[in-house]
Amino acid sequence: MEKAMRRTQLLCLLMMGLMSFKASAQNQAHKAPRTLRITNAQRNEAEIRDLYDQRAKVFRVHDLDGIMALYAPGDAVIAYDLIPPLEYVGHDSYRKDYKAFLDEFDGPIDIQYRDLRIIAGNDVAFIHALERMSGKMKDGNKFDIWCRASSGLRKINGKWLIMDDHISVPADFNTGKALMDLKP
Amino acid sequence: MEKAMRRTQLLCLLMMGLMSFKASAQNQAHKAPRTLRITNAQRNEAEIRDLYDQRAKVFRVHDLDGIMALYAPGDAVIAYDLIPPLEYVGHDSYRKDYKAFLDEFDGPIDIQYRDLRIIAGNDVAFIHALERMSGKMKDGNKFDIWCRASSGLRKINGKWLIMDDHISVPADFNTGKALMDLKP
Repeated sequence: MEKAMRRTQLLCLLMMGLMSFKASAQNQAHKAPRTLRITNAQRNEAEIRDLYDQRAKVFRVHDLDGIMALYAPGDAVIAYDLIPPLEYVGHDSYRKDYKAFLDEFDGPIDIQYRDLRIIAGNDVAFIHALERMSGKMKDGNKFDIWCRASSGLRKINGKWLIMDDHISVPADFNTGKALMDLKP
Repeated sequence: MEKAMRRTQLLCLLMMGLMSFKASAQNQAHKAPRTLRITNAQRNEAEIRDLYDQRAKVFRVHDLDGIMALYAPGDAVIAYDLIPPLEYVGHDSYRKDYKAFLDEFDGPIDIQYRDLRIIAGNDVAFIHALERMSGKMKDGNKFDIWCRASSGLRKINGKWLIMDDHISVPADFNTGKALMDLKP
């Protein structure tokens, strides 16, 4: 009997030990996101940086599909562009705007970012940068302009996509001119 | 002996039950953020909406301190404004820009947002809207302009603060004019 009791006690201790280990493992799992969050932030920032490198790459070669693949689908994307109207709502509308822009150029369009800042959470991020666009236009003129670019992004099914774009130059309120020759 | 063994078994069962209850409670706690996340998103969106209501309110009465309290401190804030230069870096620089703008007006400045969209994660968010600014200027002219506004925000010590602003009107590339009379 003594032996049987000791066996039961031993079994109990073993089970309690196992449950305690499980509880401890759950605690660990509960704490893990803190460490993970730093890694995620770094990974998210790197993924978004890649997206903008990719944007410059596809822009350069007039790859309209490649450009549009960086944006959220359907009506989720809203853009405030350099040119009117005030806003472009939806993928199709913004695609037409991009196409008209690309069609003005003869050969590669160079995109250069300066002071690109990426602020990324787990699934929402925003970026802004001074952006230089340059290239040879079909009318023979040289296009070379520094503008301001900012965007909001969302991670959708594990992939960062641009939800909104805002690209502009400042205005001179005395002359009414758009200031297209400013340099940082 | 039989009685002692049964007592030990009962004690074991009780302790295992308690531990199982604790483990289950930990599981609950582990699962809670899913439900919380929805509430947090809604709360974050509401907090940011309040911030923009507050912005319109302090803008109206030329409350420069009230305006600047909505922005991240120090050099964290970067702004691309309607007017040059290309960018304003830091609180002091942007404050001077705001002051010069407010000083042009005689009396209240009205801010109206249209199609305000707020995309908020846990601690990073972005917003954009068409923004109408109107008021009477000191030179006697009426100021009434629709522009595009977008911002990135971060939750710092439990409070949403604006990290970057981008305000602009589109440009007409044929005439070189800034388009200040567009309406949505």
